[in-house]
Amino acid sequence: MSMNAVKYLEDHHDKLLEKLNAFLAIPSVSTDSVHNQDIIKAAEFLESYLEDIGFTNVSQMDTGGHPLVYAEYNEAGADAPTVLVYGHYDVQPVDPIAEWKSEPFKPEIRDGRLYARGASDDKGQVFMHLAVFEAFMKTEGKLPVNVKVCIEGEEEIGSENLYKMLHNKRENFAADFAVISDSGMVDHNQPTILYGLKGFTGLEVTVDGPDHDVHSGLYGGAVRNPLMALSHILASLKNEEEVVTVDGFYDGVEPMTDQERDLIKNVPGEDYESALGITETVSEKGYTAKEHTMGRPTLEINGMYGGYQGEGTKTIIPSSATAKITCRLVPGQDPERIQQLLEDHIQAVAPAGVRVHVKKENLSAKAYKVEPDHPLIQKAAESYTEAFGKETVFVRMGGSIPVVEWIEAIYHIPIVLMGFGTPDDRLHSPNESFPLDSFTQGMTTLAHYWTKVGQK
Amino acid sequence: MSMNAVKYLEDHHDKLLEKLNAFLAIPSVSTDSVHNQDIIKAAEFLESYLEDIGFTNVSQMDTGGHPLVYAEYNEAGADAPTVLVYGHYDVQPVDPIAEWKSEPFKPEIRDGRLYARGASDDKGQVFMHLAVFEAFMKTEGKLPVNVKVCIEGEEEIGSENLYKMLHNKRENFAADFAVISDSGMVDHNQPTILYGLKGFTGLEVTVDGPDHDVHSGLYGGAVRNPLMALSHILASLKNEEEVVTVDGFYDGVEPMTDQERDLIKNVPGEDYESALGITETVSEKGYTAKEHTMGRPTLEINGMYGGYQGEGTKTIIPSSATAKITCRLVPGQDPERIQQLLEDHIQAVAPAGVRVHVKKENLSAKAYKVEPDHPLIQKAAESYTEAFGKETVFVRMGGSIPVVEWIEAIYHIPIVLMGFGTPDDRLHSPNESFPLDSFTQGMTTLAHYWTKVGQK
Repeated sequence: MSMNAVKYLEDHHDKLLEKLNAFLAIPSVSTDSVHNQDIIKAAEFLESYLEDIGFTNVSQMDTGGHPLVYAEYNEAGADAPTVLVYGHYDVQPVDPIAEWKSEPFKPEIRDGRLYARGASDDKGQVFMHLAVFEAFMKTEGKLPVNVKVCIEGEEEIGSENLYKMLHNKRENFAADFAVISDSGMVDHNQPTILYGLKGFTGLEVTVDGPDHDVHSGLYGGAVRNPLMALSHILASLKNEEEVVTVDGFYDGVEPMTDQERDLIKNVPGEDYESALGITETVSEKGYTAKEHTMGRPTLEINGMYGGYQGEGTKTIIPSSATAKITCRLVPGQDPERIQQLLEDHIQAVAPAGVRVHVKKENLSAKAYKVEPDHPLIQKAAESYTEAFGKETVFVRMGGSIPVVEWIEAIYHIPIVLMGFGTPDDRLHSPNESFPLDSFTQGMTTLAHYWTKVGQK
Repeated sequence: MSMNAVKYLEDHHDKLLEKLNAFLAIPSVSTDSVHNQDIIKAAEFLESYLEDIGFTNVSQMDTGGHPLVYAEYNEAGADAPTVLVYGHYDVQPVDPIAEWKSEPFKPEIRDGRLYARGASDDKGQVFMHLAVFEAFMKTEGKLPVNVKVCIEGEEEIGSENLYKMLHNKRENFAADFAVISDSGMVDHNQPTILYGLKGFTGLEVTVDGPDHDVHSGLYGGAVRNPLMALSHILASLKNEEEVVTVDGFYDGVEPMTDQERDLIKNVPGEDYESALGITETVSEKGYTAKEHTMGRPTLEINGMYGGYQGEGTKTIIPSSATAKITCRLVPGQDPERIQQLLEDHIQAVAPAGVRVHVKKENLSAKAYKVEPDHPLIQKAAESYTEAFGKETVFVRMGGSIPVVEWIEAIYHIPIVLMGFGTPDDRLHSPNESFPLDSFTQGMTTLAHYWTKVGQK
C-alpha cells in the first residue's frame, strides 16, 4: 500500500518542493511581535493544505497567543489506531542576519541542501507529514491510520499556551500514540530513533548598580560594577571542568550505566571540532562530549549585555548588566526545583552594593525517556531502515521538546520521535538547512510507518 | 584690572549663554564617524570666536584625525608670562538616549543648571575661557598674559593625535605654564584645586568559541561557552573586596600616607548612595570610598556583550563574547606595563576550547601629581576663594587627562588644573549638566587669575 504513496511522492517531488518553499518563505518568527501577521499567514497555509488533503474539523484554535492549527482524519476505520501528529510552524529569529549566505526567507538549494530558516526546525518536517498524507489520499483515497494534527506556533517561545490546550481539549487531542518529527538523526542518512530528550528550564539575571551609567574615573573605587558583579555570579555557576557548582543541581540524576555508555560510544559521532570550528571539545569531568550532550545535564549562558557596546572606549561603570541562562535537564531533575536552586544560589552569592533580580522564565519541561523495544518504536526503526537502507541507531539527545513531557503527563501514550534533520542543519543559527535526501527518504519512512502501524 | 572684565561678563551674561548654547547644539561626538561633519562645525565655531576676540594665527591644525584648534595672543608684553590653555571640543556619545529628559544637543536650563552633552565636559569650560578673554579685550583692550590656545577634538577617544602634535610643534605650544579646565570641584560652589590625576589604560577582550551560534541542546556539553569563559576571566581580575588580583598590579604604588588620608577625610564628601542610587558604597579592602576613588588604582568593565540580547529566550551557545576593560592608575604604575600584566593574566587563565584575543587600546596615560604649594597653584587657589567666597580645598581625583602627562613629559612646565564642574554634572551619562553658578563664578575666577599671574 505504501508503494503507491511513495511513487506519488517521487513523481511530485518538484511540485512538493515548490510548495514547501512557499511555506518557508513566510517569516513566522514567534519571538518577535513584529511577525504576528506572518504567524497567521503560516497558520493559514497549513489550514488550507489540510483542507485540500481532505482533513476535517480544520481550524486555527485560539490559544490566547499564536493559533494552533488543528485537523482530524477519521476515515481509516474503527480498527485503525489514532495517531496524534505534533509539529510547529514557528521559527527562531534570524540574527545575526549578516552571516546568512542567502536570505533566510528565500529558500535556496545549494549542494543538495535546502537553505531557509525553518527548513529543518520544524516547518520542513511538518510539511513532509502533510505531503505523505496527500500522497495516500491521492493514490489510495484514504489514510492507513486515523490522525489528529496539532501544529503549534509557539514552540520557539516555550509552547506557553500548548499545555493548557492539550489539557483543556482532551477530546480533540486524545489518541493511541503520538508521532513527532522535530529532531534529527546522528548523521546524514543515518536512521536514528530518539528514545530520550532532555528537560529544560531558564532564567534571566539582572544586576542593578548606580541609577545611571557613571564616570569610571570619578566613581571607580566607590561603586560596585554590575558587570563585574554579574561575572562573579556567573563564574560561580559552573567551574572550568564544566561541572555545575550549584548546590543540589545533580541530586537525583540517574548515574550513567556502562550499557548506556557503550550505546553512546557506538553512535556514529559528529566531528565537533571541524563542524563547529572549535580548537577542542570540553565536557563535564568524567564524561565524554557525546556522553555529556546526550545524557548529562548542562547549564549555558545564552546571552549577556551591559554598558558600552559601540566603537572605541567609553569610560563608564554601567548602571546595569543582564544575563540569560538556560539548563538542559535529565531524568531525575525537576525543572522548577532546579530553577529555584539557581535563584537561591545567585541571591546567595550576590555581592553587596548591587541589587540582583532573578526572573524565572515561564517555560520548562521534564526530561523524557521511552523503552527502545516498544513495538511502535520498533516499527519506526524498521521503516527508517527500509527507506534509508541502513540499520537504525537508538540515541538520547540534548534537545528539549516540552510537548513530549506534556503529552506523556496528560495522555499517558507512547511518543515516537521520528526526526529527519542532520547535525549540519544549523538549527537556531544562520544558514539553517535541510538535506534533500532527508526530505525524500524521510517521506518514504513515514509512508512505510503509517502502513505498518495501520495494519492489524 | 580684572574688575572691568568681571563687570563685562556680568553685563553680557545672557548673550554669552546664548552663544554657549549655539556651541553646545553642535553634536561633536568624536567616537562615531557619523559625526565627523559636526566635529568640523565645532572647530569652526571656535576658530571664528578666537578671531573675533583678536587672537592671531588662528587655525584648524591637521592632526591626521579630528582637527586641533590653535590660536595665539602675543600682545601682553615680553614681561608677561605665556600660558598654554588646553581644552577639548569633542563630547561623549549620548546613549542611552531614552534616559535624557531634554535632548542632549538642545541646551535647556532647569533649576539653575544648563543641561546638554558637553555642558561640563568640556565645551562649557572651554567656552568660559574664551568669554573671559573676550571680556579683557573689550574692556582693557588687551590680555594680562600671553596665550596659546590648544583645543582638541579627540579627548574622548584618547587624544590619539595630540601627543604627536605637542611633540612635533614645540614652537607652537611652548609656554611658561599650562592651565586646563576639564575637571570638577568636590562640591557645588566648593573651590577645588586638583593636585593629582589618575593615569589610564585599557583593553578589549574577545573570546571566540564555535564559528557560529550553536543550539544549546545539541551542543551543550561539548563546547566551551564563550560567555562563561569570559565571565571566569573577568571574575579572576578583581575579587569581591575590590582588590585587583592581577599579579604585579600594585607593584610600585606609593603607600597612602596618614597626611594624605587626613586631607582626603577633610574634603567635603559626596553622598554617593543618594547621588547614584546605590544601596551602599564598596571600595578596596582597607580604604574608604573617597580614598579609593582619589588615590588608589581601579579596574572596571565598561561594557560587555555576547549572544542573544532580544526579547524572550534563545537557546544558543554564542560564537563569541566581548568585554571592554579600563584601569585608572596612580603614580608608580606604568600604563604599558599594566596593560601587559592584564594581557598576560587573561591569556594565562583563558580556558581550553576557546580562542582569547586581547586588543590593547591605543590610549594610555601616566598618573600626575604636582606640589600644592607652587606659587601658580597658590594664586589659582586665591582666585577661586575670591570668586566663590570660600576656602579652596586641594584634592587628587580619579579622572585621567592624558594631556597633563604629555605636557609635563614634553615641556616640563607646571600645569594648573582649574575645573568648575560639580559631582552632579553626570559626565559621560544621560542628562549631563553644568551649574550656572559655576559658569559665572568660574569666569570670575579665571579673570582674577589672569590678572594675578600677569602681574610681576
